[in-house]
Amino acid sequence: MNSLPRAVRILAEGIVIIDQTKLPEREVWLSLTTVDAVIDAIARLAVRGAPAIGVAGAGAVWLAALETPDDGFETRFRRTCERIADARPTAINLRFAVERSRDIALLAKSPDDARVRAREAAESLLEQESAASRAMGRWGSSLIAHGERVLTYCNTGWLATTGDGTALSAVYAAHNEGKNIEVFACESRPLLQGARLTAWEMVRAEIPVTLLCDNSVGLLMARGGVDRVLVGADRIARNGDTANKIGTYMVAVLAKRHGIPFHVVAPTTTFDRRIKDGRGIPIEERDESEVLTLRGVPVAAPGARAFAPAFDVTPAELITSIVTERGIIKDVDESGISAVVP
Amino acid sequence: MNSLPRAVRILAEGIVIIDQTKLPEREVWLSLTTVDAVIDAIARLAVRGAPAIGVAGAGAVWLAALETPDDGFETRFRRTCERIADARPTAINLRFAVERSRDIALLAKSPDDARVRAREAAESLLEQESAASRAMGRWGSSLIAHGERVLTYCNTGWLATTGDGTALSAVYAAHNEGKNIEVFACESRPLLQGARLTAWEMVRAEIPVTLLCDNSVGLLMARGGVDRVLVGADRIARNGDTANKIGTYMVAVLAKRHGIPFHVVAPTTTFDRRIKDGRGIPIEERDESEVLTLRGVPVAAPGARAFAPAFDVTPAELITSIVTERGIIKDVDESGISAVVP
Repeated sequence: MNSLPRAVRILAEGIVIIDQTKLPEREVWLSLTTVDAVIDAIARLAVRGAPAIGVAGAGAVWLAALETPDDGFETRFRRTCERIADARPTAINLRFAVERSRDIALLAKSPDDARVRAREAAESLLEQESAASRAMGRWGSSLIAHGERVLTYCNTGWLATTGDGTALSAVYAAHNEGKNIEVFACESRPLLQGARLTAWEMVRAEIPVTLLCDNSVGLLMARGGVDRVLVGADRIARNGDTANKIGTYMVAVLAKRHGIPFHVVAPTTTFDRRIKDGRGIPIEERDESEVLTLRGVPVAAPGARAFAPAFDVTPAELITSIVTERGIIKDVDESGISAVVP
Repeated sequence: MNSLPRAVRILAEGIVIIDQTKLPEREVWLSLTTVDAVIDAIARLAVRGAPAIGVAGAGAVWLAALETPDDGFETRFRRTCERIADARPTAINLRFAVERSRDIALLAKSPDDARVRAREAAESLLEQESAASRAMGRWGSSLIAHGERVLTYCNTGWLATTGDGTALSAVYAAHNEGKNIEVFACESRPLLQGARLTAWEMVRAEIPVTLLCDNSVGLLMARGGVDRVLVGADRIARNGDTANKIGTYMVAVLAKRHGIPFHVVAPTTTFDRRIKDGRGIPIEERDESEVLTLRGVPVAAPGARAFAPAFDVTPAELITSIVTERGIIKDVDESGISAVVP
């Protein structure tokens, strides 16, 4: 098979995305034709997932090239690119994609040439991420045995990439190979990407899925209910420390305690070789209202404040292996990573 | 001070409780005048918290004695008592309170005498739990230093007891002693007792409170943001293994990893000396809809199933000490517990 939809596409008039804030109730596709529309979509998580926002960012760079007048092109274009790269701080895919597209565009001899090159850069990144997704699926599935119960966190499927996903690409591949797997999806408060998006993808693909509150992982593991954990990543430091959706660290600590393999699945575009370890990764804090409400409904006593980080960092020592499109990093440390990620 | 309301009272016509399903939006007090009304209130968590449901159960035994006709009194009364004790399975306070009240009532020479004795038994348990709450507050506060940031889970305040609380009784006491503490309240999915009830109690008492999603405990601890953890309990086995709200185990594992003291605060009525260790504690599974919806709003993709346990078990090895009304159990094992709990 491979009939999954594509969450981000680059068409003649702009970028088309599925609006993830509307799922699972409504499947709404948005056509984003201006830089501001893309930045807004990234900031409000209409498009999310590290590889997907990377490609959306590259698409925005193309739109920036279109919007920037010839007069003072480079300065203005660079400034707009910076605005795009800053739309969200943690997933490094966004900044890298923007800088790559910008640099490719600025090799051009004219603004018009830059516009063409920026579009080509976005398209080529999209193709690269789609291919990476397929390769991660194959590598990741090679880890999964028949009948395994796989726990996953947040959403790492086709919604999060331009292909079938990162961690969920491995799940789709294992399922397609007839491995008869079962998925446990953590709901991933506050924005419930697990409940809203992963459960939706799994139900749609007819892969057995059980949803659980994030706080129930410990009991499920203590009962022997989990064979393997697969998660995605938003940024991986040089030593393997991995930023991912808030709560991933808790899952990793519990997996370690229960002797359950814990794998990160991420394309090489998620590795940040400039950063030594997890302490260097900026953690986005979202608006308190995301914790104080749930799908618009207040859940907390009026007057309470909230701590609303979007990510946490899982230390390399808790990670069994990192699956990339170039292969599996079994020694999660600087030299193990260097052997696979250029 | 000590002007906190009382969540469960025994009046002439029946039991009065605050309906916790309506908080924090509305403060609704219910008068429960039949056994079925009390069982229903316990089952749908209108009254909750191990000590509070113990007292409500004892009150229901009194109502059972009133409702049971003289003809065949003992057999019918025992049967109704069994129904009350079965309203929820995990918190042992309920069964113990029901059995104690039943046995006291059945020492009587006549049904009328049994009705009087059942009422006295309920009133005396209420007084005992209120006194225990005060004592736990004093003992618990003795652990808390000036300026500490205390993390707590679920709700363990006046709503959960007939006094000021278990773990939160210590928080109230420390606050009243001017210790300038700060509370971090985990929201406690799926029913959000932390967000709805603990945050409400803290805001009401003007104790600084920050709410967090349960999955954010790891990051907060990794940043050095927590000095101490205080939680309640629903049942404590002979070796100190402790059942409490689902997610408590995760908090304990993270506290251990970060070297943060983790205390259970519970009255002696929560200890189940008949059970050797945590494996013997039945874990209530709630309806899937509690995970699939949030305050009535669907949060999951249609078609997904859910895992909906209400409790988990924290092994004794992760517990720094257990605070009871009789003192602090520093060696959390069978002999340490025996020295304090009769």
